[in-house]
Amino acid sequence: MARKTDFSDALTPAAPDGAIVIASERARSEIPVEQLSHYLLTPEFIERQNRVLSALSKEPVFKKGNQANLSRPERYMLGLARGKKIRQLTVKLGWSEEDYAMASYLVDDVLPYYLHTAMFSTTVREQGSEAQKAYWMPKIDAWEVIGCYAQTEMGHGSNVRGLESEAKWDPKTKEFILHSPHLTASKWWNGTLGRTANHAIVVAQLLLPVSGSGAETKYKSYGPHPFIVQIRDIKTHQPLESIIIGDIGPKYGYNSMDNGYMLFNHHRISHDAMLSGYSRVDPDTGAYSKPENPQVVYGTMTAVRSTIVMEARLALARAVTVAVRYLSIRRQFPDKDAKDKTAAELSVLDYPTVQIRILPLLATTFALHYSGKAMGELYQRTRRDIEKNGDFATLAELHSTSSGLKSLCTDLAAAGIEDCRRAMGGHGFGGGTGLVQLNATYRAKQTVEGDNWMITQQVARYLIKKVRELSQNPTRPTATRTEENLKRYLSSKGSKINLKIHRNDRDIVEAFERRTSYLAFTAHEQREVQQKPWNTLLIDFYKLSRAHSQSILVTNFYDAVQNDNTLSPVTREVLWDLFRLYALTTMDGDAREFYSSGAVTNEDLDLISPRVLELMQRIRPHAVRLVDAWGIPDYLLDSSLGRYDGKVYEDLWDKAHRQNPLNEITFNPDYQTDELVLGSGDAGKIVSKL
Amino acid sequence: MARKTDFSDALTPAAPDGAIVIASERARSEIPVEQLSHYLLTPEFIERQNRVLSALSKEPVFKKGNQANLSRPERYMLGLARGKKIRQLTVKLGWSEEDYAMASYLVDDVLPYYLHTAMFSTTVREQGSEAQKAYWMPKIDAWEVIGCYAQTEMGHGSNVRGLESEAKWDPKTKEFILHSPHLTASKWWNGTLGRTANHAIVVAQLLLPVSGSGAETKYKSYGPHPFIVQIRDIKTHQPLESIIIGDIGPKYGYNSMDNGYMLFNHHRISHDAMLSGYSRVDPDTGAYSKPENPQVVYGTMTAVRSTIVMEARLALARAVTVAVRYLSIRRQFPDKDAKDKTAAELSVLDYPTVQIRILPLLATTFALHYSGKAMGELYQRTRRDIEKNGDFATLAELHSTSSGLKSLCTDLAAAGIEDCRRAMGGHGFGGGTGLVQLNATYRAKQTVEGDNWMITQQVARYLIKKVRELSQNPTRPTATRTEENLKRYLSSKGSKINLKIHRNDRDIVEAFERRTSYLAFTAHEQREVQQKPWNTLLIDFYKLSRAHSQSILVTNFYDAVQNDNTLSPVTREVLWDLFRLYALTTMDGDAREFYSSGAVTNEDLDLISPRVLELMQRIRPHAVRLVDAWGIPDYLLDSSLGRYDGKVYEDLWDKAHRQNPLNEITFNPDYQTDELVLGSGDAGKIVSKL
Repeated sequence: MARKTDFSDALTPAAPDGAIVIASERARSEIPVEQLSHYLLTPEFIERQNRVLSALSKEPVFKKGNQANLSRPERYMLGLARGKKIRQLTVKLGWSEEDYAMASYLVDDVLPYYLHTAMFSTTVREQGSEAQKAYWMPKIDAWEVIGCYAQTEMGHGSNVRGLESEAKWDPKTKEFILHSPHLTASKWWNGTLGRTANHAIVVAQLLLPVSGSGAETKYKSYGPHPFIVQIRDIKTHQPLESIIIGDIGPKYGYNSMDNGYMLFNHHRISHDAMLSGYSRVDPDTGAYSKPENPQVVYGTMTAVRSTIVMEARLALARAVTVAVRYLSIRRQFPDKDAKDKTAAELSVLDYPTVQIRILPLLATTFALHYSGKAMGELYQRTRRDIEKNGDFATLAELHSTSSGLKSLCTDLAAAGIEDCRRAMGGHGFGGGTGLVQLNATYRAKQTVEGDNWMITQQVARYLIKKVRELSQNPTRPTATRTEENLKRYLSSKGSKINLKIHRNDRDIVEAFERRTSYLAFTAHEQREVQQKPWNTLLIDFYKLSRAHSQSILVTNFYDAVQNDNTLSPVTREVLWDLFRLYALTTMDGDAREFYSSGAVTNEDLDLISPRVLELMQRIRPHAVRLVDAWGIPDYLLDSSLGRYDGKVYEDLWDKAHRQNPLNEITFNPDYQTDELVLGSGDAGKIVSKL
Repeated sequence: MARKTDFSDALTPAAPDGAIVIASERARSEIPVEQLSHYLLTPEFIERQNRVLSALSKEPVFKKGNQANLSRPERYMLGLARGKKIRQLTVKLGWSEEDYAMASYLVDDVLPYYLHTAMFSTTVREQGSEAQKAYWMPKIDAWEVIGCYAQTEMGHGSNVRGLESEAKWDPKTKEFILHSPHLTASKWWNGTLGRTANHAIVVAQLLLPVSGSGAETKYKSYGPHPFIVQIRDIKTHQPLESIIIGDIGPKYGYNSMDNGYMLFNHHRISHDAMLSGYSRVDPDTGAYSKPENPQVVYGTMTAVRSTIVMEARLALARAVTVAVRYLSIRRQFPDKDAKDKTAAELSVLDYPTVQIRILPLLATTFALHYSGKAMGELYQRTRRDIEKNGDFATLAELHSTSSGLKSLCTDLAAAGIEDCRRAMGGHGFGGGTGLVQLNATYRAKQTVEGDNWMITQQVARYLIKKVRELSQNPTRPTATRTEENLKRYLSSKGSKINLKIHRNDRDIVEAFERRTSYLAFTAHEQREVQQKPWNTLLIDFYKLSRAHSQSILVTNFYDAVQNDNTLSPVTREVLWDLFRLYALTTMDGDAREFYSSGAVTNEDLDLISPRVLELMQRIRPHAVRLVDAWGIPDYLLDSSLGRYDGKVYEDLWDKAHRQNPLNEITFNPDYQTDELVLGSGDAGKIVSKL
């Protein structure tokens, strides 16, 4: 759009100027931002971010200014155009997988090709036979075929065993017949499927004939298995004849993605469509052979869960960055107790009611960081142990930890993003936050890769088992920290140990450990001694998992700060305060559990509130530098309120006044005519779009 | 779109069929739905809803099917077209104001004309002089002028006294000069302003000259005052020359509304532009005369707040209706303890982890109902007392109550809508919920009409004052229930009275009252005895306000069920359980406050969880009938998941497969070409829209 010239050009924001405020905020703290940034993100990440950002900034398709004004079909098209361009840049500039992932992260769209590069590719690589990999992987890597991952159905998500899609083996033709017996068998939600992919991994019940023939054939189900299937014609991009495919329509978020649906009508696929790296059907005898170790199959999901924690920290850091910068600049009301009635208005971030919503979230970004890192290390160790030594010892711990942390951390980030929005008041509801898409889209994380309530059962099951083992043999040697904690608790069960949480940081950690152990023993007692029905205990299991996962966050945070010898003293001091703030506000949220477990006295719990106030006052001067350290570039933030340079109001004005297509149209507000755009004679034309 | 015919036409959902399930859910309960519906909504409301719905259903502009696919400019246009049509129907069918409001409620768009019919009209009526009303009201009522309400600025929202816009009195020309001295003085967020209105109420600092002349004139500010101002040319609809206006761009929600911005450059308006029903400037002497009773001015805001509670109940009821119906129909996993390994999957609403998220919200809709009703009655009584007898006695109580309830109830509804979404798992993230727009838009309520955190200070200030009065004179007679509670608390302060909350429902109410009184005395002690700075107590004030408002909800709920003699016994029995569920889950959320106040023992607090499980089991069979009683029509729900007839999967399929414009386009996924739509040669055209 052509830049308008008018009297607003001569105007500036009222004092204090945002740029000056943000500079003086930075001057209040001596935290070496670059050092902390390298520590949190690694120099490699920062170099990659700068390099990829520079490449993206040259391509107009990555401009974000007007994307929120587009229609849903246009929004998908934009995603497609961006996906193509990122791939073109990857080829042209020789980008690595990490570079490609960085580009997607910065562009901040879930690309229509996402499932091709993620689950489709991974599944073939991990579950295909050598022959299948040799055939498919070059085509996949070259994007000659575009694939998706079609597991979830309209009627079944979490309960994979309940999937309805069938793959019947036809011994005569040596083919599988894919079929959707009901509407609810339609594949549903699968990303990349709706408009983009021409191939799919289809997860279907493997049915092998056991007796009879023709229409009388009786089948036995071997459970869900993955098949690689062409779904659209390569030239016309139309669905193959016995397949119906489409996009499921607008959603809360992910509008750049074509989440799809798919039905099969007795669609025949050849024998080699079944991915047979683990399970296979003998084409001659029709006999089924099982995976040697089925646990390996869920390695992918566990890997995804471990990266989710690291992603959660950056998603939350983005929202906290916007909130901390804007709320430092924004002024509202003079101090009510000020003697001088013309006193200047306070920075909104100086109000405790705003601090209590933002600063614990700032602390949470660090808590997530340390546990995300620890999870990554545990994952790598477990993988190594399994692959090198066939040692599955830590797999159960990894699986439990990753489930609990996935649930807790995505909840923390999703709720935190929304809390940041709300704390920003009026402008927090506007597009100037840059958080509208993140807020809508991030929430999906609470459901995908295991619903956040449902997967807490896995943590409870693991802890109950550990208590059972310990109860059966109280002197058995402990292999993990969880086991140590349970054993220590057993030795003082029922007594009040009243830790000194306000005098000793290590006691805070122990309070969390004791509370988890208390809840674990209670759960064990209810389930295994009193034999209560599993389903009646689900709420307790959820609380147990949350407690355990919070304990992990607190422990990893404590250990990391305790063991660090690289950071400047001022940074470490602030990190200790952030540790205390995260731990104590978390404790305050479930204070009775800490009391009931005998870990903390009521008096000490009462002292948390004033101590939190004090911690927030100490952290407050460092807030802007702390968010700076997360290194979120302005391009990713795409936020007037969160700009690094503090020019909040200038940018709000510029975006509204100079970049809003609605302002190019003059409307006719006279209710007596159906004409909408003045002078266009368009009476009622919008109706045709409905 | 033309209906496709394909093999999906022959498919039905897998058993159990949603329609059969929902019918059997209804058969499980004997609650007379129609009776309860009349009791909650009134027969007048139901008649109006049916009548208006019937008129709307004949007009294609009110179809909702495709609206989520529109671009932002189209979404505004649709809102404009709907606004016109509703006004046309109002004239044609002789609709009352309530009929008009019902139409807006059912169409579920914030209409671009909203501020005209609400704040613009109300402000002229309440603050105009008789002459101004005689001139303006006929034009306003006939929609000959379209107005908006321009108060909030880019730099100032809550702190109205901090507004920067100036209205300087020019005694020579007897005009006011409207001026925006900075960019931050731009009016901002004001609905109807951006593209629709040709007039505005402009709230600006009234500046009267005190000495000097010309550029040397010194002015005194009399604070913000409202002016009625023409802002656009009536014929061309272009902004007047010394005014800049526009729409602020895409937001979290309200996309059908043109929230606007506006700057003035020494814009002159005549003397009679200042609304002078209360304050006025004498055109001859330039002297200012003050309002007789400035409290009347905030009557409008208080009225708005009182209706917010009633709206909150229906907004939440909508989400709960969708969740209860869908989660009754949806099946997931067989019972883990089932002996029969082929046992059928359970209704998702039978899981306690789902019940705990949905059934307390169902109870909350009733809690909101009774307090919304009580607020409305208090508002009417106060208004009558003031207008008839000049008696302002209950105004402070009304103001405090409405502030606290506005804050609590909009928080409950906003969080509840999101909780319903999440509890619905995968489909909960999709457009089939019908809740995407409500979820995005309703959140604004937490900020507008007084930010939910900020306004809790008003409750605290009121309660501290009441404690002060009581402390100064412990035997003073009590005029309100709040005062009685504080007095009763004073007589047993410091002791544990250990109410029997599990034996006596009245004791539950008393526990809430005691906890509020305890927090009120603590706040008074901190502020008035220890003289702590106001701002350091804001978090405590927030907690106090929440406690007080929860107590009001619980009290009104109890009183209403206790005093009812119209409902069937089965309904009353379920209402008692809903009362207990709402009260006890609320208590559980802040259990330590109840313990600390001496109201409830730790042992009784521990018993809440098992009792809640039991209450949920008792309420569960009635859930579908209870949401039916809220009478939300399918047209308003616009939800596949929440349909009255239970045809969830058929409708999901129909909307995705037959009503999604994205599925009309065939794309080109080959990354090596920039072409997006296959065969169109459109390479990269989306870039031009950015």
